[in-house]
Amino acid sequence: MPKRIRLEKRVVAESDRLAKELSDRFNRAGVFVANLMSSPGAGKTTLLEQTTRRLGAELRLAAIEGDLATDRDARRIRAVGIPCRQINTGGGCHLSARQILEAVAEFDLANLDVLFIENVGNLVCPAEFDLGEHRRVVVSSTPEGDDKPIKYPVAFHHADCVVLNKIDLLAATDFSLEAFRKYVKGLKPRIPILELSCRTGEGLDAWLDWVRTERRAVAAQAPRSAR
Amino acid sequence: MPKRIRLEKRVVAESDRLAKELSDRFNRAGVFVANLMSSPGAGKTTLLEQTTRRLGAELRLAAIEGDLATDRDARRIRAVGIPCRQINTGGGCHLSARQILEAVAEFDLANLDVLFIENVGNLVCPAEFDLGEHRRVVVSSTPEGDDKPIKYPVAFHHADCVVLNKIDLLAATDFSLEAFRKYVKGLKPRIPILELSCRTGEGLDAWLDWVRTERRAVAAQAPRSAR
Repeated sequence: MPKRIRLEKRVVAESDRLAKELSDRFNRAGVFVANLMSSPGAGKTTLLEQTTRRLGAELRLAAIEGDLATDRDARRIRAVGIPCRQINTGGGCHLSARQILEAVAEFDLANLDVLFIENVGNLVCPAEFDLGEHRRVVVSSTPEGDDKPIKYPVAFHHADCVVLNKIDLLAATDFSLEAFRKYVKGLKPRIPILELSCRTGEGLDAWLDWVRTERRAVAAQAPRSAR
Repeated sequence: MPKRIRLEKRVVAESDRLAKELSDRFNRAGVFVANLMSSPGAGKTTLLEQTTRRLGAELRLAAIEGDLATDRDARRIRAVGIPCRQINTGGGCHLSARQILEAVAEFDLANLDVLFIENVGNLVCPAEFDLGEHRRVVVSSTPEGDDKPIKYPVAFHHADCVVLNKIDLLAATDFSLEAFRKYVKGLKPRIPILELSCRTGEGLDAWLDWVRTERRAVAAQAPRSAR
């Protein structure tokens, strides 16, 4: 086997081992973990702000923010009142299981209900990396165009839920809801597509319900062994 | 030196060698080459459609379209009447010099004035890879938010021109032109920022002038040795 492939295999195996360690830790602590991916500027942070405002009194939330640079997102999330860790990747194009392991060391996981991981804004690379999460969410937005699912199929294919943000801008764009739904369902026939606007609040209730429901489903499958 | 670093160095050296080969080939043929980068859906293809409609009678244009999957962009560009090659990267998050070398083999470079390379929609990885281009263009768009330059500094730092697309959506978003300009200029004080809308046509003339001017500047520096 050439050296390059041998090396890649070793790196991938190590990454998978750390993801498994994270998954075990999340299950032991009984915390539901969702990994959010999107293009830059699709609205992941705004979605988390709105989620925190609406669910913060009901569930114990926390977030990990991944960015190349700046702590802007973490400051935005802390401002709405939940614990948040910023990971700056430097040039790195995705979050890694190792980075998440270091970040979660600063949380008391057993005292959390939901941990959101906001990945680096990139619709390509983060999809390849398991962070031990229970669910993956792809956030798309109407100004990006309705063809993103077929042009970036890997991210959508690995998703458990698609959030379509910025539906308040529908009339101002050429976006076809029908085409978008068809493309997503062509990749994953049964995936939920939650059409909403973080700006106006329209459609947010369905997203909050999705978080509640998936959290309960995960808790039912993996009861807290620490209890 | 550990194996991994040695290997990376070899891969980078090979990539640089191929980029140099491309650069030499572009200069010998006297074709001006611009490498366009952006987030998914910022409007690179629409910008090229509009450019082709307006410059196609004046300059001999061609394009290379990079995408993970589908030939949608290449079909859109061919529909406006210029030669176009689609590169599908599979999962690949950026175009490589090797892929460009293969693609340009199908063009008669000496009979072209301008070659546009539309990179994979990704504001992170393409910035790391030289494709032998004369100029780099980062296309940003108002719905993505005004903080993209500081959150994705590498792409902006390596750019020669920033196009801000979708200014027709300014009123419908929280985008601050002032903040965006400040962030870009903080990274590159003298870079041109071309604010336009591919949808309404507003501001496109300045972009066309930039293409004309940069093409002339490059031609003056590197006269066609093939002539």
